[in-house]
Amino acid sequence: MNTRRIRVGIVAPSSRLEPAMAARVKALAAESYPSVELVFHPQCFRSAGHFAGTDAERAAAFVEVANDPAFEVVWFGRGGYGSCRIAEAALGKLTETARAKTYLGYSDAGVLLAGLYSKGFPAVVHGPMPADVSRDGGEAAVVRALSYLSTNAADTLEPSVTSAGKVAAFNIMTFSQLIGTPLQPDLTGHVLMLEEVSEYMYRIDRSLFHITSSPGVRRVAGIRLGRCTAIPDNDPDFGQTELEVVRHWCVQSGIPYLGRADIGHDAANKVVPFGGLRSA
Amino acid sequence: MNTRRIRVGIVAPSSRLEPAMAARVKALAAESYPSVELVFHPQCFRSAGHFAGTDAERAAAFVEVANDPAFEVVWFGRGGYGSCRIAEAALGKLTETARAKTYLGYSDAGVLLAGLYSKGFPAVVHGPMPADVSRDGGEAAVVRALSYLSTNAADTLEPSVTSAGKVAAFNIMTFSQLIGTPLQPDLTGHVLMLEEVSEYMYRIDRSLFHITSSPGVRRVAGIRLGRCTAIPDNDPDFGQTELEVVRHWCVQSGIPYLGRADIGHDAANKVVPFGGLRSA
Repeated sequence: MNTRRIRVGIVAPSSRLEPAMAARVKALAAESYPSVELVFHPQCFRSAGHFAGTDAERAAAFVEVANDPAFEVVWFGRGGYGSCRIAEAALGKLTETARAKTYLGYSDAGVLLAGLYSKGFPAVVHGPMPADVSRDGGEAAVVRALSYLSTNAADTLEPSVTSAGKVAAFNIMTFSQLIGTPLQPDLTGHVLMLEEVSEYMYRIDRSLFHITSSPGVRRVAGIRLGRCTAIPDNDPDFGQTELEVVRHWCVQSGIPYLGRADIGHDAANKVVPFGGLRSA
Repeated sequence: MNTRRIRVGIVAPSSRLEPAMAARVKALAAESYPSVELVFHPQCFRSAGHFAGTDAERAAAFVEVANDPAFEVVWFGRGGYGSCRIAEAALGKLTETARAKTYLGYSDAGVLLAGLYSKGFPAVVHGPMPADVSRDGGEAAVVRALSYLSTNAADTLEPSVTSAGKVAAFNIMTFSQLIGTPLQPDLTGHVLMLEEVSEYMYRIDRSLFHITSSPGVRRVAGIRLGRCTAIPDNDPDFGQTELEVVRHWCVQSGIPYLGRADIGHDAANKVVPFGGLRSA
């Protein structure tokens, strides 16, 4: 195993972390990946209404860690909601130092991943976050992230990544709310992986209409469907599964449907490096 | 009172109508506006999962009534969800006959209003629908719509419409899901009125980020905020009202905030003719 030392700065652009989550994640790293040093920015534990601190506090912490040459990785601590409130201001303050780092997260953090990828940052990655430690079996998700950061281990990757060429992965609703804004990334020729949690099927359907109606998205190589979990009951029954829904919109839009993706809001969520694997 | 006869065809591009709703609306029209003849297309009462009939049935009914010279008005019967599933196909089949009509509705029907307005149809109107009869005090909403269709009565209009120049009105989530698609209307120089119902405050915030981040939307003359009702409790408390949220995004985006609009998912919902009042 490659044992290069890595210093990882953790910030929370959306919802706050519980200190107990951070302690469990630090213990896991110390036990399994002692070469990975985790530094939770104090902002992770702040609170302001819905968010892990005010917009200014969250933006400042993200910019501070991203621009600090002491860190090789910026790890987003948790999803929830709030990244879009700091994205435009914070992304504009990143330096060349920030460009060299790896950025890891998913769900609401996808807003920042999209913005970073749009700016041409080379190491923007969908994958587990520290707060996943609280899920059923969530330690495996955290260990997977540490393994990816430490050794780029192939078994951490979403299986199709190896052969797919360019790839990207997003939460459906998060991605939908970037369409038509300056944060929408150019995914021409990419395989786009999409997953969802806790949304009614009619909303999944509506967001897939939205996503697949974007002229930019119609230039993707294809869509893969991740897991859609904890879907509340529709009244009346929606009458279509998420697979039928995504196939419907792929047919309507002329986007190839390429099969399932091994991503989702769960402990099995795999790593997807935006842009795909590059020969080093 | 102007007593010109008007034939109104009613279709349901989203969710189905109960026959009892139709009967109550027909009785109201017979009593108060006998010059207005209401014809509920049988499709209004069909059912297919979430929708008032299959996509093909809903699209066909809309196209049939819009293209039928016997009707001067197409009235959308109810919101819910489903217009986006038929919009692209149905709008492409409309003829010059369809262009001459008035189209009235709101909520999910805003998808079709947006598409019709984008195609340059001159009489696209936000206002009450037949299903509003089931709301508290909803007969007043239906009578308002009948009054507008029958006489263009000034007291049916959202108050700022008279002096505002170009205007348009949308449900926040419905409009958000059109951003960046061919259905997003060019609202340059328009006052954009926005309302919402039954959405968490964090979702209202996120959709306002989305809407106000669209370069096209940044060319509006300003935003007016309609009523946001039945907002579920946020946990933790979001910490901002809908007024604070819309003001925040107006400041961020440089869009003037112009005050409240007298629209919403309620019996007081006023009429907003897209494009504003034209000198006849």
